[in-house]
Amino acid sequence: MKKDLEEPLQPVILVSNDDGISAKGIATLIKIMKRIGKVIVVAPNSPQSGKGHAITIGNTLRMYPNHMFGDEVIAYECSGTPADCVKLAKYAIFHEKKPDLVVSGINHGANSSVSILYSGTMSAAIEAAIEGFPAIGFSLCDFSADADFSHTEEYIEKIARKVIETGLPKGTTLNVNFPSKNQGEIKGIKICRQAKGRWGEEFEQRTDPYGRPYFWLTGHFINEDKGEDTDEWALKNNYISVVPCEFDLTAHYALSSLNEWDW
Amino acid sequence: MKKDLEEPLQPVILVSNDDGISAKGIATLIKIMKRIGKVIVVAPNSPQSGKGHAITIGNTLRMYPNHMFGDEVIAYECSGTPADCVKLAKYAIFHEKKPDLVVSGINHGANSSVSILYSGTMSAAIEAAIEGFPAIGFSLCDFSADADFSHTEEYIEKIARKVIETGLPKGTTLNVNFPSKNQGEIKGIKICRQAKGRWGEEFEQRTDPYGRPYFWLTGHFINEDKGEDTDEWALKNNYISVVPCEFDLTAHYALSSLNEWDW
Repeated sequence: MKKDLEEPLQPVILVSNDDGISAKGIATLIKIMKRIGKVIVVAPNSPQSGKGHAITIGNTLRMYPNHMFGDEVIAYECSGTPADCVKLAKYAIFHEKKPDLVVSGINHGANSSVSILYSGTMSAAIEAAIEGFPAIGFSLCDFSADADFSHTEEYIEKIARKVIETGLPKGTTLNVNFPSKNQGEIKGIKICRQAKGRWGEEFEQRTDPYGRPYFWLTGHFINEDKGEDTDEWALKNNYISVVPCEFDLTAHYALSSLNEWDW
Repeated sequence: MKKDLEEPLQPVILVSNDDGISAKGIATLIKIMKRIGKVIVVAPNSPQSGKGHAITIGNTLRMYPNHMFGDEVIAYECSGTPADCVKLAKYAIFHEKKPDLVVSGINHGANSSVSILYSGTMSAAIEAAIEGFPAIGFSLCDFSADADFSHTEEYIEKIARKVIETGLPKGTTLNVNFPSKNQGEIKGIKICRQAKGRWGEEFEQRTDPYGRPYFWLTGHFINEDKGEDTDEWALKNNYISVVPCEFDLTAHYALSSLNEWDW
């Protein structure tokens, strides 16, 4: 395994996701990345949607070789979260070397606006950015297991090549979302900011066979942002949204006013 | 339960955490909040450290009354993550009403620098901020189960009263970290930015009784930030660090350069 990474003649690309290694989205992403470089896959062995930036502490992790993508692709399935996958890939595969690009997805479902915080897909990309690797998360606004990713392929290849060629500011990752295929023709790529929105949770309360209550998280997205420079606006208007993201959560705008407080 | 929230004469404070409802840290926080207002607790029924902003989708949630904090406190334990607890509290307890403050912690262990991303404690606070509630996460740089929180009490009370009185900019939450008791006398409160750092993962690879490999996540924090305005600097120098945080991850600095790319 280590030998494969010595003196690569082509870019080395690490691929992960949150829907799990057997999802259609990651198969599509691997197919596209094989056109660009040497592909290494470390992906969860089970669905990890909504896992946010969770990591596995206080429990063990497994990582086993997986051969479903053929001999050209070095693939492992991992028992952990998407962030665990990136950490384990760095530790067990890359050692002191760096991937030229880390891509995560293609997620079955949108990760625009505030959904980025709940998204395992984007957490893999953000974890890669924390490690100093150029990283991109790709998501499609269609959560069905057999979603049609065909219209995303040319754009994903173009964006990935561009990032390898140009680089990204250190610590920055791209959150790329695609309108669903049935939304019609893509108008192009828009650089956006994250829309201000939230999920209006409603939950569904039911009673189990033993008479005790339980809840299902349901709800719908509420866009509180009227801006035309947001990811939500772009997707609604058939553009691909590209939001550059950082992992510094400091609200810099609030520093000066808090310093005025009488502590 | 609903009746208790009608026309409260005092501030209503929602308390959660990630170490679980039986942790010493949340008991301390509840004790302090009882001096300020009416306390509602919705906290995980099991440890949720490192769960980041995970939410429970594709599985059910349970929430049961808990009586360990006496009759004055309305408390529930929840089978989900810290973010789930805040969502469920809003849905099942607050309905259209809003808490005057949401506090999370006191975490057993630091949540400074990049640890905020992995932290369940801070995710409860950030989830509250997404809902538009004033929120604070409190953490102590001591991860032992019987950590000494005594030196944090006066400051936590002061900070919580100040936030209720003054408010926070919408969508902003405070990430408050305390030096450990044995680090000596607290010098005061510093408003900080999140230090740039990362966890240098090392993992420990072992072999199970059946001859198969498994991994434990280990590692140590690497502070890559020489600034004296960071949370890491403050904590190292015996100050309480207060970082205002936001949930917009847009790297606004990168928008203009990405717009120059030839897409």
